[in-house]
Amino acid sequence: MPAASFDAERVLADLHLLDERTGGPGGARRLAWTDDWEAARDLVIEIAGPDFRSERDRAGNLWFLPPGDHRRLLVIGSHLDAVPAGGWLDGALGVLAGIEVARACRADASADGTAVAVVDWADEEGARFGFSLFGSSAFTGALDPAQVARLSDTEGVWAKDALGDHGVVLDDLNGPDPRLERIAAYLELHIEQGPVLERAGLLGSAVTGTVGIERDRVTFSGQASHAGTTPMDARHDAFLAAADTALGLERLALAGGGRATTGRVELEPDVPTAVAGEVTLYCDLRHGDRDRLESLRKEGMELAEAAAARRGCSVSRERVWRIQPRSFDPRLVAAAEEAFAEVLGAPVGAIESGALHDAAELAPFVPTTMLFCASRGGLSHCPEEDSDDEALLAACRALDSLTRRLLGSGLGSEGRAR
Amino acid sequence: MPAASFDAERVLADLHLLDERTGGPGGARRLAWTDDWEAARDLVIEIAGPDFRSERDRAGNLWFLPPGDHRRLLVIGSHLDAVPAGGWLDGALGVLAGIEVARACRADASADGTAVAVVDWADEEGARFGFSLFGSSAFTGALDPAQVARLSDTEGVWAKDALGDHGVVLDDLNGPDPRLERIAAYLELHIEQGPVLERAGLLGSAVTGTVGIERDRVTFSGQASHAGTTPMDARHDAFLAAADTALGLERLALAGGGRATTGRVELEPDVPTAVAGEVTLYCDLRHGDRDRLESLRKEGMELAEAAAARRGCSVSRERVWRIQPRSFDPRLVAAAEEAFAEVLGAPVGAIESGALHDAAELAPFVPTTMLFCASRGGLSHCPEEDSDDEALLAACRALDSLTRRLLGSGLGSEGRAR
Repeated sequence: MPAASFDAERVLADLHLLDERTGGPGGARRLAWTDDWEAARDLVIEIAGPDFRSERDRAGNLWFLPPGDHRRLLVIGSHLDAVPAGGWLDGALGVLAGIEVARACRADASADGTAVAVVDWADEEGARFGFSLFGSSAFTGALDPAQVARLSDTEGVWAKDALGDHGVVLDDLNGPDPRLERIAAYLELHIEQGPVLERAGLLGSAVTGTVGIERDRVTFSGQASHAGTTPMDARHDAFLAAADTALGLERLALAGGGRATTGRVELEPDVPTAVAGEVTLYCDLRHGDRDRLESLRKEGMELAEAAAARRGCSVSRERVWRIQPRSFDPRLVAAAEEAFAEVLGAPVGAIESGALHDAAELAPFVPTTMLFCASRGGLSHCPEEDSDDEALLAACRALDSLTRRLLGSGLGSEGRAR
Repeated sequence: MPAASFDAERVLADLHLLDERTGGPGGARRLAWTDDWEAARDLVIEIAGPDFRSERDRAGNLWFLPPGDHRRLLVIGSHLDAVPAGGWLDGALGVLAGIEVARACRADASADGTAVAVVDWADEEGARFGFSLFGSSAFTGALDPAQVARLSDTEGVWAKDALGDHGVVLDDLNGPDPRLERIAAYLELHIEQGPVLERAGLLGSAVTGTVGIERDRVTFSGQASHAGTTPMDARHDAFLAAADTALGLERLALAGGGRATTGRVELEPDVPTAVAGEVTLYCDLRHGDRDRLESLRKEGMELAEAAAARRGCSVSRERVWRIQPRSFDPRLVAAAEEAFAEVLGAPVGAIESGALHDAAELAPFVPTTMLFCASRGGLSHCPEEDSDDEALLAACRALDSLTRRLLGSGLGSEGRAR
């Protein structure tokens, strides 16, 4: 098979084609477990063409495998699914860049006994059922199918039924997929989705790992009462206790690093003429350091308790979701930095990802790293999501360079599945 | 016609009967413009019995008139309609106490040429269409029918159609009802719906007037962004600007008197993993003094602007509703205090009402005052709403005493409609 040369422009053309067919001015239409999503996958199978054999695993992940039987795989992954009215690059960039890299590396791959494969993980976003990283966590065996079985979408359709319609039998998802043992290393290219690189004047970077996340539902219970007849000093205003807590969390995160977000709030009774009697504040706390994440959560709860006590309210906390910080493989991170620096002719740093990615699920099992492409204005999960062509092309070339380095270094053959 | 003696216990029995038939443990079922409400009105017509002639005016207000033709009327009013799952006393106390007082005063009335009439105002609560004091404002001519024509309920039914089903033609509500000129004075007994009297150890009081209200929708515009990828110092968090403002309004009202309530908040996109890009905070501001209400609103907006500016957000304000403070007739307020003191054998004060009542609509046109009955725990608009029997009986007797005083003083004949 002749070696093909890598064509970064082709990735851009493929991305535009995908956007034309499954997106447009209103944003991406690729919600997982829908016909739109299947249409996007069919188009990408067409784009990949006869250079690949495509197959689905039991979790619905779509694999693009080079022809032949390869004992070991260097896997490049990302996801085609999108949040409703999402951006054109989130996930799609990584899959289409991966396909072009894998196509260009066909010859290199065969020389070393390790082939480059691409995977489109199923339902990274969790936008329909609220469960993120479905396909990658099912693949490694980290997923608890019983947890997914309890989920339904806003129209009352059970996750189990929707998955079944797309050939995924939830009860079959026990333990890791047999392919896991054959993976020598895992790479993922993604847009940054934040403003850090743009502010630093960088087109891209390597990624050191993903932050840990603690997500809690914090409920303040006071006393609903009449806006007109209840004197200010006789109130038990649950919303003011929540507001006080939200501002305190902002101060904690500004002072101690990490991120604290209170993006969803529920009031009862939620009418202009009544003091709120019960308020639920969703607190999303993130930090790259496990101990400091724990402190942030602990101090956050202390200030919620103080804010509640000041107003004669009580407060309780329920953990909604958590994930530990996940560090990527230091050798791969260094190789990613070198690859990117080579493409740009200048050093790039390595930053921590504040967002989750499928790479976080792979990292405990397989040497893993990621590459980031700078986002414009830090916007993502919206139709305005964009990156400069210069940044997109550089990131694609860096992924190609990194992949060739790893194949050349023989890392593939010493990769581990632990 | 023989003079009947006033029986306060009968009012309690009537209230319990009404609660059995149109309420119960789940709270009152008397939402205006529904069959439940009509059933409650039919029951009260039955309770009133042959001592009254009942008729509806063009706004749907239900009048209980003594037999015969009386040039001038001393009107006792309140409302049978209730918020969903409301309390058993809110409104109903005033109507049923009024009927018993009017029955007992039949003889006195005829001696002076002024008769006591009772009115059940239609849709005081505004719970279905969001428009309070409908019947009383239509009666005085203050209502703008065009404003009501734009309203629909949560199920999309237009106010115009719902009113039509109950015999009210919105387009006919132009100018004051001819009955207004015949009203010598207006009295209303209501539960306090707050904790002020209970805290002061009082069973009831006279009422000096109703506070002014400014209700605004204050919208903060920032930038929605990813909870994980947006550094704390790169955010434009509209929710934190709103939280900051809510706490500032609390401080202003604590320091300067009056009441500030932020009981409804809307976030966009309202998801745990996104910084809120747009937040609407409903601000309900109340004060008995017109100038201080204006200052509260002005200073509230200044701090909203400062809170927005600190986070790189913008802010705008839209007035939803307002009413000026309404002072009741000083002579009637004094007479109400004397009547209550006589019943209790101890002086009672007169307090300002933080809640709105139909009396606020009557006060600019007719000498008006109100009596308050102490509420238990300050709770209202909920099934737990209650008052001690002792307080209810005293309040009913005070209404009877006040009515007789006014009839005896000949105030009825010097009443004015201006």
